Amino acid sequence: MFTGLLAELEKNLKKLPGIGTKSAQRLAMYLIGMEKNSALELSESIRLAVENYQHCKHCNMLSEDEVCSFCSDTNRNDTHLCVVENTQDVYLIDNTHEFHGRYFVMGNLLSPLDGIGPNEINFPALLKLIKSNGIEELILALNPSAEGESTISYIAHQLEGLPVRITRLSTGLPFGGDIEYTNSLTLGNALKRRYSVSD
Amino acid sequence: MFTGLLAELEKNLKKLPGIGTKSAQRLAMYLIGMEKNSALELSESIRLAVENYQHCKHCNMLSEDEVCSFCSDTNRNDTHLCVVENTQDVYLIDNTHEFHGRYFVMGNLLSPLDGIGPNEINFPALLKLIKSNGIEELILALNPSAEGESTISYIAHQLEGLPVRITRLSTGLPFGGDIEYTNSLTLGNALKRRYSVSD
Repeated sequence: MFTGLLAELEKNLKKLPGIGTKSAQRLAMYLIGMEKNSALELSESIRLAVENYQHCKHCNMLSEDEVCSFCSDTNRNDTHLCVVENTQDVYLIDNTHEFHGRYFVMGNLLSPLDGIGPNEINFPALLKLIKSNGIEELILALNPSAEGESTISYIAHQLEGLPVRITRLSTGLPFGGDIEYTNSLTLGNALKRRYSVSD
Repeated sequence: MFTGLLAELEKNLKKLPGIGTKSAQRLAMYLIGMEKNSALELSESIRLAVENYQHCKHCNMLSEDEVCSFCSDTNRNDTHLCVVENTQDVYLIDNTHEFHGRYFVMGNLLSPLDGIGPNEINFPALLKLIKSNGIEELILALNPSAEGESTISYIAHQLEGLPVRITRLSTGLPFGGDIEYTNSLTLGNALKRRYSVSD
């Protein structure tokens, strides 16, 4: 339906997650209709962010600097390392204020169906970090999905025998959740992992 | 939660309709994590579209050219004029292939609560077009909302006495709709405007 620059814009907007044809067309129309400087600021801030973000050389998260703000923060606990899938998860976990150690971003999780096997994940860098930094606890903060579970098992297996405590996020009912709408795997696991109300 | 260029990007993404804090953060992370050239193409296509689109000098729709493709198309019926709220509506209506006349984009509809009265809508340009182009039918293809209804009434009233047939889009149940979930105003109107099944 669109032609020229508008069709080009629609095509490029559709690269974003959750943006289909209809949303892309609506956004494209909105962009060319909105206050011109405001739209140009958006264009420019995409360019600036994309050109200036890089992977932190220690933890692999996306950062404006060669070493991210978490890795350069001297007040964090060096002996606790939290392994996450991506940069956004670092922010989400840090926002809970329950963890004050260091992070490591895996990037890929194991996913044989997508051709991601043990050689395609960032395990060597993780292993090097654990050995060189005297990590005492490794928290595998990955999703309880097929990919997350495989990766948790793989990492735990590879680290067997090393003097490091390996933990994962608790699984169970989410706060605000409803037993009626909880799948049976989650509910069974919540029963199995029930804990004393006085804990 | 974000800082620097990422916070700037989040702020700019939130200018888009339907993008709140969570979506903006998710998009921002996606943008800096995606293939660099692909993200830069998006940034560039926003800039190009925004800088090159302008209002068509005849119909007021946003166009890459001074005169839009609809107004410069000599195969369209000059005597039928379809009045819409915005540029996107032109495309949506044209996509039905049920209309082959010309378009006119109002931009604003009457909305006293937002301070948009008769002097803030594009009626003078519309009147000029009707008089100079010998329009026989004026189709007010505006939303059946408070603003649309006021604008339809206002335009119809202003044009009283001119030799032009003034029509509006039919109102009733949408195809695929369900009487059970239809509001009573729509249902009452659908009854009032019922038509013979042989029509």
